[in-house]
Amino acid sequence: MLLTLVNGAPVRDATCAISVEERGLTYGDGVFETMRLEANSVRFFDRHLARLRIGCDRLGIKAPEDPVLREDIAVLVRNQRDGVVKLIVTRGAGGRGYRPVPALTPTRVAILYPPNNNAAVNGVEVRWCTTRLARNRLLAGIKHLNRLEQVLAQNEWTEAHIAEGLMLDTEGELICGTSTNVFIVSDGALVTPDLQFSGVRGVMREQVIKLALSEGVAVEERPLRPDDLLAASEAFLTNAVRGIWPVVTLGDHRWPIGPMTARLNAALANAGI
Amino acid sequence: MLLTLVNGAPVRDATCAISVEERGLTYGDGVFETMRLEANSVRFFDRHLARLRIGCDRLGIKAPEDPVLREDIAVLVRNQRDGVVKLIVTRGAGGRGYRPVPALTPTRVAILYPPNNNAAVNGVEVRWCTTRLARNRLLAGIKHLNRLEQVLAQNEWTEAHIAEGLMLDTEGELICGTSTNVFIVSDGALVTPDLQFSGVRGVMREQVIKLALSEGVAVEERPLRPDDLLAASEAFLTNAVRGIWPVVTLGDHRWPIGPMTARLNAALANAGI
Repeated sequence: MLLTLVNGAPVRDATCAISVEERGLTYGDGVFETMRLEANSVRFFDRHLARLRIGCDRLGIKAPEDPVLREDIAVLVRNQRDGVVKLIVTRGAGGRGYRPVPALTPTRVAILYPPNNNAAVNGVEVRWCTTRLARNRLLAGIKHLNRLEQVLAQNEWTEAHIAEGLMLDTEGELICGTSTNVFIVSDGALVTPDLQFSGVRGVMREQVIKLALSEGVAVEERPLRPDDLLAASEAFLTNAVRGIWPVVTLGDHRWPIGPMTARLNAALANAGI
Repeated sequence: MLLTLVNGAPVRDATCAISVEERGLTYGDGVFETMRLEANSVRFFDRHLARLRIGCDRLGIKAPEDPVLREDIAVLVRNQRDGVVKLIVTRGAGGRGYRPVPALTPTRVAILYPPNNNAAVNGVEVRWCTTRLARNRLLAGIKHLNRLEQVLAQNEWTEAHIAEGLMLDTEGELICGTSTNVFIVSDGALVTPDLQFSGVRGVMREQVIKLALSEGVAVEERPLRPDDLLAASEAFLTNAVRGIWPVVTLGDHRWPIGPMTARLNAALANAGI
């Protein structure tokens, strides 16, 4: 960690900064964003803030005002060029039971990490995870703090050559990677799983859809099965920090880095923030 | 809070005691127990420790040894007669991504709260919650920290005369109350929902089943529907802190506090710890 703010103030000791009654800890009662700092600018910051607000609304958390969150991040990244910014907003600290105490003040935690090594110019190898995603419309799409499924899924493999694990929901639908969204190219169209029952509506997913539409590419959000992936002419993963990762290997299956993936990657590189 | 220990040590400032990288906060990556302290003894402590261990095993967390946890609680409740003891065990602090870092040391948080007012001698009124429980075998039964569904369910009502909300899973099966297990009496047998897809296997649920069997009562664990509850001759809720709560009102429906409920309540009062 390069710097940590809790409720806007730099903490001297990040190992000792959060309440034992913090509802983020006791119930996972909050949301988070993980963002890419590039040339002292948080990429797609407006979209991250918008998604955070959607998540808070869904959970009935009164999200801090945008200027408050913007100021947190401005202080966090001051004089920093590149890195990974994590922002957590919880319902606050207090209340032994599940019931939210109405008067709680949401907790803000902002952490700056060094940059990731994001390079995947030659594409990535992926695997199937056996951990399934539960289906619940109420929690689908938002980036809440109840992430045991993703933790267990990432715990399934240690091989360094596997960059990501693909996850199915309990009905066998292909939903996402453990920390990525998934896209395939099918009959010339860009297709990505419908996320009404599980998964996270990634900020990079949204940007890629927007870029594809602006390039005149047909985009479909619909339920996908593993066979749809295997039949696809191209496949790639998206993540706000990593951008677009072409998928080239899954077990015995190989894909080329196809023209659609290359085109969208170029469009993304040229896109504003 | 009367006292708080983090990793065995009393904390001077409980509002500032946990790491910002605590995985319990960032992912809900841990388990907890809520226990009843009565006459300086934690009721069913062995069973709580056993369930905590089952939960840790399921999540791949190396649970602290029992003597360590016993010592935590011994220190916590020293010279205290009655109260509510909460024990949280997480995978530990560290790692920006979902993937568990192998070398992490689990975090222990033990908190002593004043006693609840548990009296429900005349039975309780309950309601239906609209928040549904997702189905996932991997997380069902254990008391993990991913509790947004329960938080949202308890947020559905504020009326003080409603003691608990009943929850269905996404397939419409009756699973539990927001913080209780549910039992019905049907054709003289004690029936409680099968919890293979969701819900928590409560310590008090386990004790009530054991007591019923020792009294020669037939016990069934099977899927239940709301209609099964409405057709039941008796219904009650269980919780480690509250014991047995007879259900007497649900909307227009009324139940008496029946003979089975009274019998099990008496047996529980006479049971050891």
